[in-house]
Amino acid sequence: MSDWSPEVYGRFEDERTRPARDLLAQVPRAEARRVVDVGCGPGNSTELLVERFVGAEVVGLDTSPAMLAEARRRVPAAHFAEADAATWLPESGTDVVFANAIYQWVPEHLAVLPRQLAALDAGAVLAVQMPDNLAEPTHVLMKEVAAAGPWAAKLRGAARDPLPSVTTYYDALKPFARRVELWHTVYNHALADAAAVVEWVKGTGLRPFLDPLDDGERGAFLEEYTRRIAAAYPAARDGRVLLRFPRLFVVAVR
Amino acid sequence: MSDWSPEVYGRFEDERTRPARDLLAQVPRAEARRVVDVGCGPGNSTELLVERFVGAEVVGLDTSPAMLAEARRRVPAAHFAEADAATWLPESGTDVVFANAIYQWVPEHLAVLPRQLAALDAGAVLAVQMPDNLAEPTHVLMKEVAAAGPWAAKLRGAARDPLPSVTTYYDALKPFARRVELWHTVYNHALADAAAVVEWVKGTGLRPFLDPLDDGERGAFLEEYTRRIAAAYPAARDGRVLLRFPRLFVVAVR
Repeated sequence: MSDWSPEVYGRFEDERTRPARDLLAQVPRAEARRVVDVGCGPGNSTELLVERFVGAEVVGLDTSPAMLAEARRRVPAAHFAEADAATWLPESGTDVVFANAIYQWVPEHLAVLPRQLAALDAGAVLAVQMPDNLAEPTHVLMKEVAAAGPWAAKLRGAARDPLPSVTTYYDALKPFARRVELWHTVYNHALADAAAVVEWVKGTGLRPFLDPLDDGERGAFLEEYTRRIAAAYPAARDGRVLLRFPRLFVVAVR
Repeated sequence: MSDWSPEVYGRFEDERTRPARDLLAQVPRAEARRVVDVGCGPGNSTELLVERFVGAEVVGLDTSPAMLAEARRRVPAAHFAEADAATWLPESGTDVVFANAIYQWVPEHLAVLPRQLAALDAGAVLAVQMPDNLAEPTHVLMKEVAAAGPWAAKLRGAARDPLPSVTTYYDALKPFARRVELWHTVYNHALADAAAVVEWVKGTGLRPFLDPLDDGERGAFLEEYTRRIAAAYPAARDGRVLLRFPRLFVVAVR
């Protein structure tokens, strides 16, 4: 996948920051020595961690140099480094591992997260949020358009598997946890119209479908996808379109 | 329905208070003149409001004298009064109307809530949380057991209708709101066993099914209901049972 665009991603910053705030609100620690933001992106969530854990060493990790550069500019109080969320493990002294909207991209995260939790000191917290929207029209329609077009062969591997059940996460984390909290929040974003729904997923879920295409294919894919989105998301009375967006939250205390 | 039991209700106080805290966290006001807790119950949510809005006049309303007595003992800093959530309207100077787990009992709340919102001053906030769990096994099985037993005629009116769609709430409130936020959170409560699931709903959703029955019927109903609950909620690996519990949240700014 090509490098992420901080500008497209930042367009929906307010709406996108709420899940990170909701996750942080459930982290049962008043203080921390070291806080790590795994998959920090442009630093939105890192900024929240710096505000919440005054005096802590806050570290942001990402694989994208563009995102890290943006994050450094935005949050000078934190440190940033390149690291892979699939293999990184916390060192002793880390009191909070925070991973906002990153582990849905790591298919083996059901093995990774218990390993991270096991590596933490007693009382430290692993806090994870992942979009769980692959059964929503936005994502079902991506797959339908991918399968129906002349690009079907190119896009064969683009669709991800849905997240496992809540009980699966509970069973994987509980052996290493004093306490595990698991919940979904289903947000409803009131967007201007169907085109705004497409813009919303363009920066994230749609990328594996668009990146393999050439310019002509991309235009045709987007046109067909937008048509189907408009049919699946009828407008509310004031003309706006409610984008239903479920996310899974995990908070485990070592 | 007979009067509520503060003791049974309080047994799950911590778990039950989280939705109120989650709702309060999204109320976009730092200060308030007057805050009203509609359907305050034993004062759990009123206590949160007193902590959050220092200096505000906080008023708790309920129809149950037993709940009001318990609330007065628990939260001496607030005022409490008997009032019906279906007809009460806020007076001018009210900056927050808070209604935690009450309006699911008021079938006409889709008319009541816009009326309350319309009565508020500009910038005041209506914040509502309702269980939206009538499609969960806990509630589907109540209806099944009610329909299948010798008590079917007695329990004909016990089941409530599911909540309307999110768009329905959006359309009803938007004409009176600067901003409307709507979301569901689906909690997963790790309970000891199937019997604990039954205990959980006994204080709330099961009451309209148990109250019309005599003692013998009640025992037989609970036995059959517990059997079905045990089958519908298999244990996690550590033996605990995850009770999925969806709730709808509404925050509207006048």
